Amino acid sequence: MPPRRVIGVDAGGTKLLGGVVDEGLVVHHRVHRLWRGADRQETLDIFVEAVEEVRAASPDVDAVGFGLPALVDQRTGQSSWSTHLPLEGVPFRDLMSERLGLPVHVDNDANVALLAEHRRGAAAGHEHAAMLLLGTGIGGGLLLDGRIYRGFIGVGAELGHIVVDVDGPECQGACPGRGCLEVMASGTAIGREAERLAAERPDSELGRRLAAGGEITGAIATELAHEGDEAAIEALAVVGGYLGAGIVSIVNALNPEVVVIGGGAVAAGDLLLDPARAVVAERALPPSRDVVRILPAHFGAESGMLGAALMALDGGVL
Amino acid sequence: MPPRRVIGVDAGGTKLLGGVVDEGLVVHHRVHRLWRGADRQETLDIFVEAVEEVRAASPDVDAVGFGLPALVDQRTGQSSWSTHLPLEGVPFRDLMSERLGLPVHVDNDANVALLAEHRRGAAAGHEHAAMLLLGTGIGGGLLLDGRIYRGFIGVGAELGHIVVDVDGPECQGACPGRGCLEVMASGTAIGREAERLAAERPDSELGRRLAAGGEITGAIATELAHEGDEAAIEALAVVGGYLGAGIVSIVNALNPEVVVIGGGAVAAGDLLLDPARAVVAERALPPSRDVVRILPAHFGAESGMLGAALMALDGGVL
Repeated sequence: MPPRRVIGVDAGGTKLLGGVVDEGLVVHHRVHRLWRGADRQETLDIFVEAVEEVRAASPDVDAVGFGLPALVDQRTGQSSWSTHLPLEGVPFRDLMSERLGLPVHVDNDANVALLAEHRRGAAAGHEHAAMLLLGTGIGGGLLLDGRIYRGFIGVGAELGHIVVDVDGPECQGACPGRGCLEVMASGTAIGREAERLAAERPDSELGRRLAAGGEITGAIATELAHEGDEAAIEALAVVGGYLGAGIVSIVNALNPEVVVIGGGAVAAGDLLLDPARAVVAERALPPSRDVVRILPAHFGAESGMLGAALMALDGGVL
Repeated sequence: MPPRRVIGVDAGGTKLLGGVVDEGLVVHHRVHRLWRGADRQETLDIFVEAVEEVRAASPDVDAVGFGLPALVDQRTGQSSWSTHLPLEGVPFRDLMSERLGLPVHVDNDANVALLAEHRRGAAAGHEHAAMLLLGTGIGGGLLLDGRIYRGFIGVGAELGHIVVDVDGPECQGACPGRGCLEVMASGTAIGREAERLAAERPDSELGRRLAAGGEITGAIATELAHEGDEAAIEALAVVGGYLGAGIVSIVNALNPEVVVIGGGAVAAGDLLLDPARAVVAERALPPSRDVVRILPAHFGAESGMLGAALMALDGGVL
C-alpha cells in the first residue's frame, strides 16, 4: 500500500505555500500564491485554487491541513483574529471543507510549524520549546511540558507580540501594540533596517541597489549579506539583536530547551541567529541561558506546510 | 482536634516575613526581619532566628515552608541562583531541616504566592494565571493548564526579567539584562521614578520631602500618592505604564485568565494597576486583552508567606 497523502497549506502574511505530502514527509507537489492585497472572498478563493491545483496532480489525497497566521478557535475551526489576512470571524474549517469536499483541519501557522519541528525536526525529543516564524510578521508557538500550549481561550502563544521596546514603533497589521518583537525583528523589519542602512551607505552594494531604484526587502538584504555586503550583514545583525532581546524574555519566562527560528527569514541563517545568540548569552539569566539552544528550523521555510500536513495526517487537533 | 499549624516564611529582596499559619490560613504570630546586607552565613542565621522566634510562641508547628527570591531546584531543594540574596548554590532545604529539626519545604517565592492566590485568592477557579510579586525586585509565577509551570530545568517563570525596553537601564542585582520588567516596574523603580519627579517638582509634597533630606522610597511615594500628592500619583502612573507593557507581553504570549499583582508594592493599589490596565486595553491583542483581568493579590503582601505555609501543609512540592 502506498503511503497516505494529504495536502498541507501554510498561509503567511504575504504568500501561501502548499504541497502534497505523504506520511514520510516527502513533498510531491508544491504550489505558491501571493495574496497581493486580496479581500476576504479573494483570499478564500486563492486557498481553494491552490489546493485544487496540487490535488489535480495528486488526486489520492484524503485530507487538507491549513496553518493560518491567525488565532484559531479549535472548537469551531473559526479564524477569530488575524493581523495579516482578512479572515476575522471566518468559519474557515467548515467553509473549506464544504468547498473542497475533503476533511479539513486548521490551526495557527506557528503551532503547526512547531508540530513539524517537534515530531521530526529541531525540537525533536524536547518537551519545552518555543517556535518563532519570521516572515512578513512573526508567528509564535509554544510546546510546554510536551504539549502545544493554547492558553485560556486558545489564542496563545502570540510570541511575535511580546514587547521589546515599550517606546518603539507602532506594530504591523492589525496589532495595536508598540515595539512588539514582530515590528522589530520580522522579515519586514530586516527590509526596513536594510533600507535605512542603504541610504546611510551609498557605497555598499545595498546602497547601490537603493540608488538604482531597486526595492530593498528582507530577502534582498539576506542575499546581499550572504554575498558579503557589510551593510546588509549589519542590517541582519541589528535585527538579530532585537530578536535576541525577544528570546531573552522567552528564555527567562519559560526556561525552554530550544528556541526554533523558522519562516522565510530563516534564510539569513547564522548572520541573523548569531547576533541573537550573543544577546541571549549576555543578557538572559543563568542557568536558563546556558541550557537553551537557538536553532534554525530543520525544515527551513517549509515547517508550516509540513506541520499542516502532519495535522491532517493525524486527523485533527495537535 | 485543633487545626494543624505550620510556619510560612516569605523571603523578599529586602526583608523576611514569617508567620505561624493554620489550616484555615489564620495567621497566629508574625515575624519580620531586614537583611541589611547580610552575607550568606548571616542570611541563613536570620532565617533560623526568625523561625525560632515564632516557633517559641507556637511550639506545636509540624513543618516549615520557605518562599525564596531564587531559582529553586525541586529535586534537591537547592537554591541555585538568586538576584537579591547570597544564596547561590546553598543546599537550603537540607541545611534548614538540619538546623530546625523540622520537615522543610522550599520553592520560589512567586510560585508559593501564586499557590496561595490560586487556592484561596484572586486566581481561585482559574487554570491560566500569572503572578507578579512587586517588591525590591519582581518575582514571577505561572499557572498553566492548572499547574505551576517550571520549565525545562525548573527555573521558569522569571517574569520579572522579560524585556520591556531593549535599550533600557541595566537590571538590578545579579541580573545581566537591560530594561527588564524588574528594573522598570518594581517597588525600587517606583522609588527611583518618584525621586526623579521630586527633583523636578519642588512644590509637590514629594519635592518637599526630598528637599528636607528625606529618602524617597516606593513606600513613601505610595503613601503620598494615597494622600493626593500629584507628583507621587504620577510616579505610580509612569511605573504602572511599564508594568502594563510587561503584562501586554504576558497576555499576548500566554493568554491568561488573570494576572495577579502582589508583593509590597501592591499597596499602591489602583493608582498603579489602573495605568497598567489602560496600557493592556490599548496595546494587547484582542481577544486575549478582553478576557484577562488584572487584579491585586487577595492576600496583599502576605501571599508569599501564606503560600509557603500552604506548601508546608501540603507536605511538599506544588
